[in-house]
Amino acid sequence: MPRYKLIIEYDGRPFNGWQIQTGQPTVQGVLTSAVETLSGEKTLVQGAGRTDTGVHAHAQVAHLDLAKAWDTDTVRDALNAHLRPHPIAILAAERVADEFNARTSAIRRRYLYRIVNRRADLTLDAGRAWRVPRPLDAGAMNKAAQLLVGKHDFTTFRSTECQAKSPVKKLDILAVGRAGDEVKVTATARSFLHNQVRSMVGSLVCVGEGKWSAEDLRKALDARDRTACGPVAPPDGLYLMQVDY
Amino acid sequence: MPRYKLIIEYDGRPFNGWQIQTGQPTVQGVLTSAVETLSGEKTLVQGAGRTDTGVHAHAQVAHLDLAKAWDTDTVRDALNAHLRPHPIAILAAERVADEFNARTSAIRRRYLYRIVNRRADLTLDAGRAWRVPRPLDAGAMNKAAQLLVGKHDFTTFRSTECQAKSPVKKLDILAVGRAGDEVKVTATARSFLHNQVRSMVGSLVCVGEGKWSAEDLRKALDARDRTACGPVAPPDGLYLMQVDY
Repeated sequence: MPRYKLIIEYDGRPFNGWQIQTGQPTVQGVLTSAVETLSGEKTLVQGAGRTDTGVHAHAQVAHLDLAKAWDTDTVRDALNAHLRPHPIAILAAERVADEFNARTSAIRRRYLYRIVNRRADLTLDAGRAWRVPRPLDAGAMNKAAQLLVGKHDFTTFRSTECQAKSPVKKLDILAVGRAGDEVKVTATARSFLHNQVRSMVGSLVCVGEGKWSAEDLRKALDARDRTACGPVAPPDGLYLMQVDY
Repeated sequence: MPRYKLIIEYDGRPFNGWQIQTGQPTVQGVLTSAVETLSGEKTLVQGAGRTDTGVHAHAQVAHLDLAKAWDTDTVRDALNAHLRPHPIAILAAERVADEFNARTSAIRRRYLYRIVNRRADLTLDAGRAWRVPRPLDAGAMNKAAQLLVGKHDFTTFRSTECQAKSPVKKLDILAVGRAGDEVKVTATARSFLHNQVRSMVGSLVCVGEGKWSAEDLRKALDARDRTACGPVAPPDGLYLMQVDY
């Protein structure tokens, strides 16, 4: 059966995350229904990353198999028609080899976390960023973030519900920068633990607010203890930006 | 009475524009109610620009008079509390001289128009940008846009409901640039006619799609005839970005 790769954008707010669940609106569930409407086939759309409730994607990647060889522009446009009015869009569709697997073939994932650092509530960015009212020192956050880069046991920054076999991951990039009142955190790795980015961002905000020193962050990492983590950042500011193969 | 200047951000979608109207949700109406809740005074909040239904602002400016001298941080924070859950936020409040008038003292206004140039429907940007599916030549748009810069009779690019005395305006900047699939149009002038930015953007998109040449745009301007205008761009992509004094 021909295999297709999809690049998918979505607004995570109305969904109970990516992963299909009976009786709940999920991105995977809506996509799988749209594929069934298109082709009449019940085939699971398998994604590169299981984003949580309220987490967004600019470029989630997924694969699916269809019985016949469709024109890829038709797959993209017809799925988009069937996805309305859900805020999910297929940006691109292409044919890939049978060996391609959106999850296991991925060699690098990049996430963006958006913080708006101001006192006033969010209007245009409501649900799309985390508002932090206290002034953040983005330079201190970026410096401390470098302590998390590399291969570490990330038990501290891992949800207790995480199903990964090992808590050891290699974090390639964790960069914090400010543009006006927006503080952006970029995280790149082959793969992440459940809630890892939001857990790291929450602890970096403790550093930015001056509640934690960089040394406190290092101690939290070294503790390998979930209770040593700062408050977990809300899903609103998290975006799956890119998956490389 | 002490006069205050406010910098205001809002998501234009739930509002029938800026200007207060009985029985309709408007930005000015909600702000005026919040001021009354704060101070007990019925005082109109006067804005720099009357944005239309669905048009957004990152930095609308307004002024208002209050009987007593309030701490400006209190004005900002208390108004924000009273504005909830409306997507309107006071970013800053300051005391200004009695002569300051948000509308008549303004010497320059800057608008941004966001176009997303792609086939797929918008998800995260729904209601915040105009999706144009046909490929746009942003370079051709920018070149043609320069024909509109300067002092002209903008009758072609003016709503028939425009109440300005004269259709002659001096346009300082009209710049078009592309970043990925986003095409941004920046427009700067002392003041604009009603629907002028959206009318110019609609005609520039005709140029970008190759339906119009730059010469066609010049002829439309020279016609001084509303019927010579291209389709008016929707409000979704328009943002009031800055007002200078």
